[in-house]
Parts: sequence; structure tokens; C-alpha cells
Amino acid sequence: MLNTTLCYIEKDGCYLMLHRVKKVNDVNHDKWVGVGGKFEDGESPEECVCREALEETGLTLHRPAYRGLVTFVSDRWETEYMHLFHASDFSGALLQCDEGNLEWVPKSAMGQLNLWEGDHIFLRLLEQPVPFFSLKLVYRGDELTHAALNGETLSRPYCPKNERKP
Amino acid sequence: MLNTTLCYIEKDGCYLMLHRVKKVNDVNHDKWVGVGGKFEDGESPEECVCREALEETGLTLHRPAYRGLVTFVSDRWETEYMHLFHASDFSGALLQCDEGNLEWVPKSAMGQLNLWEGDHIFLRLLEQPVPFFSLKLVYRGDELTHAALNGETLSRPYCPKNERKP
Repeated sequence: MLNTTLCYIEKDGCYLMLHRVKKVNDVNHDKWVGVGGKFEDGESPEECVCREALEETGLTLHRPAYRGLVTFVSDRWETEYMHLFHASDFSGALLQCDEGNLEWVPKSAMGQLNLWEGDHIFLRLLEQPVPFFSLKLVYRGDELTHAALNGETLSRPYCPKNERKP
Repeated sequence: MLNTTLCYIEKDGCYLMLHRVKKVNDVNHDKWVGVGGKFEDGESPEECVCREALEETGLTLHRPAYRGLVTFVSDRWETEYMHLFHASDFSGALLQCDEGNLEWVPKSAMGQLNLWEGDHIFLRLLEQPVPFFSLKLVYRGDELTHAALNGETLSRPYCPKNERKP
């Protein structure tokens, strides 16, 4: 099992998104994701997300908000516990990242990006005034086969058609 | 690294506490703790805590509240990420547990129990209207050497003297 962090850094109505096109054998190849990565030994979630954000973007996060825990279960890779953060207070200058291309994407345009299906669910939760959520996502290959929020199964469609890639 | 859950089940102003006296080579030997244990593969935090509570106590938890994430770092054991829950809605009859003795302890008497020092910190946080917290605790042996709440270092004393074991 794997512990990771993921952060959506927000500025002027945009999220800082990473288009994963540079790494080989990347499970996220060609997908758009937030910034983050694996825990190093002894790190708390906020230490991990601050280190990863600095390494990947050059930005220093100030008090990122811990918003949720996503349990990813898949037939292809080990179970991943992804600690989800949102940050709107940061400093520093944006660098280029060796894992992909960084781009500020308007939140209203997120539906046009190539995202994992389940990402639409937690991106909507980030916009809501829920203090903390636990989301379980089960994938078969690229297909989301089950989703549960705080232990309650969600029913399809997980997201409205107009939020999806056309 | 290890992922675990811990739950404080509450009834009539008491927490259901486990006095860990039955297991051999138990890092918690003679300590009083809540109920919980290690994640099984593919479990979400709420699935793990409900399974562990049922196995250890015979009680079925209904919508336990996910309250915090505790990062335990130690010179003696691997880093542990403990997902902390509180439950006041449950059903079933209390069984005996093979890991220790289960006892309903008044919350006002928790300070008299043999607890890990850091447990006093998160037990106080459970009583406060904070939606979710991340607490990092660093131990050298049995001694708590560092504590940080949501990334901010806490200063000593971590808990008032009258909450400690006399």
C-alpha cells in the first residue's frame, strides 16, 4: 500500500495542473493531475505535500488545507491512500517540472481536460464547504467501477455530462 | 510504513477503552487505547475502523466520524499513519476482546489511565469542534519529543498536569 499527497494550488480562479507527458511508464501518462507524490519516511501529510509542491513547481505552500483522503483500489496497481490538499496561499516563482508541463487552468475548463473519471468527484468536493471527506474509488483498468463517499455508495452518473471531456 | 485506524466509541460520557494486557510483545502493553488496527488490502479508513471495531468489541458502528490523521514517528518502530475516528452511534452487544480488557471509562477519568503522552493531545482535540486535524507525534522510546498540529510545532506542556497520571 502506498501513501501519497495531491494538491490543487489555486490562483485567480485557476488550478495549477500538471500534464503528465514527460515520464516513461507513468500510470498517469497524458492525464492532467494536481501536484504531489509519495511520502518519504517520517513525513506527515502536510510535510509531504509542501516538499512535493516545492520540488515539482518551485512554489512554497503556506498552510495548505487538508481536505480529504482518497482510497484508490485498482486491478492494476497497489492500493493508494491519497491525502488531498488545497492551497491558495503560496510564494515563489513557478519552475518547470520534469514530470510534465505545468499550466494554470481555469476551474471552469477542468471538464475539458483528460482527467481520471474519479477526479471529477473530488474536484467537485473541493468546491463544496465540506470540512473533510473520505472517498473510495475502485478502478478496473481506466474504468471507475465503484465510488463511495464517507462509506456511502455513490450512484452513476458520478458527474454531469457537461463536466466531461467532449 | 503502516496505516491503521483508532476509534473512540462514546456512550453516556464514557469511552470504550481497551486495556492491552493480553498480547505478548505488544508495543502497547499495559497501555489503555481505543479500538482499531491495521488496514487490510483495499480497505478505506471507514471500512477498516468498522471491521476492527466489530472484531474487537462485537459492536457495529454507524457512520463513525473521521476526525484526524496522526503521524507517529519513532526510533523503535516504523512510521504509522493512524486514522482517528469517533463513534457515538452503534449497535450490538459488547464481547470480550482477545487483545485486552474492554472497559467503559468516564471521559473525566481518562487522565488517570496509563496512556501514551501524545494520546492526551488528540483526546482533547476530539472534544473540540475542529472538523479535522493532522497531528504529528515523534517518540524516542516512550518519550514524546516533538508534536506538531497541522504543521505548527506545539510547545510543552502538551497537556495540563491535572490531566496526567498522578
